[in-house]
Amino acid sequence: MQITGTFLDEISHDIPHQNWGRAEWDRDFASMKSIGIDTVILIRCGHRRFITYPSGYLMEREGCYRPSTDLVDLFLDLAEKYGMKFYFGLYDSGKYWHNHECEREMEISRAVADEVWSRYGERKAFGGWYLNFEVSRAFAGITELYAGMGQYVKQLSGNLPTMISPYIDGIKLAVPGEELYKEDSIGIAQHEKEWNEILKGIQGAVDIVAFQDGHCDYHELADYLRVNKKLTDRYGMTSWTNCESFDRDMPIHFLPIKWDKMLMKLEAAKAAGIEKAITFEFSHFMSPNSCYRAAGHLFDRYCEHFNLAGR
Amino acid sequence: MQITGTFLDEISHDIPHQNWGRAEWDRDFASMKSIGIDTVILIRCGHRRFITYPSGYLMEREGCYRPSTDLVDLFLDLAEKYGMKFYFGLYDSGKYWHNHECEREMEISRAVADEVWSRYGERKAFGGWYLNFEVSRAFAGITELYAGMGQYVKQLSGNLPTMISPYIDGIKLAVPGEELYKEDSIGIAQHEKEWNEILKGIQGAVDIVAFQDGHCDYHELADYLRVNKKLTDRYGMTSWTNCESFDRDMPIHFLPIKWDKMLMKLEAAKAAGIEKAITFEFSHFMSPNSCYRAAGHLFDRYCEHFNLAGR
Amino acid sequence: MQITGTFLDEISHDIPHQNWGRAEWDRDFASMKSIGIDTVILIRCGHRRFITYPSGYLMEREGCYRPSTDLVDLFLDLAEKYGMKFYFGLYDSGKYWHNHECEREMEISRAVADEVWSRYGERKAFGGWYLNFEVSRAFAGITELYAGMGQYVKQLSGNLPTMISPYIDGIKLAVPGEELYKEDSIGIAQHEKEWNEILKGIQGAVDIVAFQDGHCDYHELADYLRVNKKLTDRYGMTSWTNCESFDRDMPIHFLPIKWDKMLMKLEAAKAAGIEKAITFEFSHFMSPNSCYRAAGHLFDRYCEHFNLAGR
Repeated sequence: MQITGTFLDEISHDIPHQNWGRAEWDRDFASMKSIGIDTVILIRCGHRRFITYPSGYLMEREGCYRPSTDLVDLFLDLAEKYGMKFYFGLYDSGKYWHNHECEREMEISRAVADEVWSRYGERKAFGGWYLNFEVSRAFAGITELYAGMGQYVKQLSGNLPTMISPYIDGIKLAVPGEELYKEDSIGIAQHEKEWNEILKGIQGAVDIVAFQDGHCDYHELADYLRVNKKLTDRYGMTSWTNCESFDRDMPIHFLPIKWDKMLMKLEAAKAAGIEKAITFEFSHFMSPNSCYRAAGHLFDRYCEHFNLAGR
Repeated sequence: MQITGTFLDEISHDIPHQNWGRAEWDRDFASMKSIGIDTVILIRCGHRRFITYPSGYLMEREGCYRPSTDLVDLFLDLAEKYGMKFYFGLYDSGKYWHNHECEREMEISRAVADEVWSRYGERKAFGGWYLNFEVSRAFAGITELYAGMGQYVKQLSGNLPTMISPYIDGIKLAVPGEELYKEDSIGIAQHEKEWNEILKGIQGAVDIVAFQDGHCDYHELADYLRVNKKLTDRYGMTSWTNCESFDRDMPIHFLPIKWDKMLMKLEAAKAAGIEKAITFEFSHFMSPNSCYRAAGHLFDRYCEHFNLAGR
Repeated sequence: MQITGTFLDEISHDIPHQNWGRAEWDRDFASMKSIGIDTVILIRCGHRRFITYPSGYLMEREGCYRPSTDLVDLFLDLAEKYGMKFYFGLYDSGKYWHNHECEREMEISRAVADEVWSRYGERKAFGGWYLNFEVSRAFAGITELYAGMGQYVKQLSGNLPTMISPYIDGIKLAVPGEELYKEDSIGIAQHEKEWNEILKGIQGAVDIVAFQDGHCDYHELADYLRVNKKLTDRYGMTSWTNCESFDRDMPIHFLPIKWDKMLMKLEAAKAAGIEKAITFEFSHFMSPNSCYRAAGHLFDRYCEHFNLAGR
């Protein structure tokens, strides 16, 4: 089970920036390509006041800052150059939907989708949408948000695929500043119950469900993945795994994951019949170009294991 | 608005040490020079028991540890070699003035200033003093501390310039272990009121005020800078901006800032008519020689933007 | 007082993994050798579900994960190649002895020791045992645990030496998420009282006591080391110092220590007549091969100070 997709963590809200320009991004796309990555997913086009492309709408309505580079344009260029599909992540206000003002969030998201589609919709690499509202439970309004935005962007774009990447309410869903592990977790049965309801409610609007794989313990993962696969099969969706390449078990939040942990997670996904593995994310945590040297060694171990050429 | 000065973070109290020797420091001064840095400011000559030069006074009276290298001597050498002005940061006991024993703090500071001036005062690069008592509000005794020490070292050194670098009591003035952002901030009006009083009280003793620019939100910065400039103009002082090159928005405290954030802050300073930009600090956070690779990429982006030769 | 031993931090529970393979470990053993390291100590052979060698016992009884590499085998190979002694660290369940179920912990530890000795006991580099139960005080059951396991493995292995590495209940024994320093510390007298009792109780079972040197303040260390030396002399043991090469004073937990701090600690150990200095640990914190570049500079400063060839 090899990783064939990665998030692009722009705009980040908790991973320090590497300050790459076009040359550094080009080199990193080449590294991605070298291990078979064919899909890149912009995690979000904006968060609060920071945005990835000069959106007139967001600068005017939400007071967003003008970015020095149009990263959407850059990533589409590079995705085309390296023969990859690019998924566009929607805007996250960081406030409206978190405070249960989902209608306001959707109003902005629709306007951003319109703007983006008119600006970049004809680009060859534009291959899908990432609905970037990340939840672990039946958060009030989440079904309407996923369904509403999924339907909207599919209609807008001639039915391009839509993806979500929820997480599991597991023992590692820790509060900053507190212990790394919490006592209670959702448990398999409740996870299945809540996600059955959510997925039922977003049928037709969401094509791909890529659960984050880092919040439960390693030996618990296979069970969660089997449930996820069963549910997506039930509702005609595709199951990917979002194999996190950073380590949630360490006090520094976050540095590259230990290779053995990543391998166990990939094997659990393979056993569950998951269709595709993506990662959050290549450029910081498993790239030979990363500012973190342990990421380059993770890349080396990964290439050795799968008999890839490596760097 | 280019950065033409940097702090030297020795002795650090919260930034991990790079363990550089003379050769590494020499290389870094060359990098500073290459982008036009003409001023280096030793943030403090000592903090608690750690000191930068073998101060007989501090080792005897405060139980300070003998340093393996005389960094003041080294920095003066390099500042002279590269044609820079060196500002000397006073000693911080880490206790007396924090506990409102300002008289005790000043007694030590005066003795240290005497010792330093007699030892290094004739060095060509010795260009000013940094009064390293950093506050954000009208902390009891701060006016007396700034005024008393400013007058003392100016008289001692034939009126060499004195500098302070306060901070704004903004949303990012967070307590370690708690949330990154706090709800309340001082607000522009109260900031102006308190700093008007402080600056009025330290006229003649302090020449340069270089507020740290990282504690408020990016869109709030221009207003604070305009107030700072208005106040320093009123009292015949010079306004510099201390453009922080580390990122306060990330859970790892601290790694290099995102270039776009630094650029926004420099543009806000330019718009406010600020006379000079310095940074805290080049060697960890924007140097091609830094242990953090993202610092080198920040250097690259900075050089690209200002059409500098780069590395 | 040079460092001639290092822990190998596998399995780590709080230091992010470097993802090294055989080639990287070989290079690092060469670097160790170059500065005179003759002893490597596996900090633990397993922690919770992660283990360093494919232990049938631990995989079956404790649900441990099969490791992708047999690190015990690898480290024994490299220790032999570079002429070093290898100390084997026991398994830490992360729960039983912490919850005062010491009998259960010992049952597992004995089984692991049996398995390990039968598998690796004839390897030339196998030179001792590390009893990896780390405490600072007269924790209930610790004497029985040290004595019981020490006697067991000595008998098993023809009296190979056993080592422990306790810590001091000093001001830097901080709780994660709280302040770096705590108000209360054990104090010299109480430290001596408690450790006198413990060492008396483990005579004959433990040969080497290597206190960690990072939990008290630098100027307090010499006194603690003298007490430690006096107590080990009294009970016929050997005193080593575990000179920590990471910095406990910084908010990032953990990056390489400042050279001056390490030097002070080594000098305190020398003054106290400590027999040997080891470190936790070379590969992350003072190696030229470390993912942290400041570690390489620490190596450079160390080599300069002791007139070693360096890299």
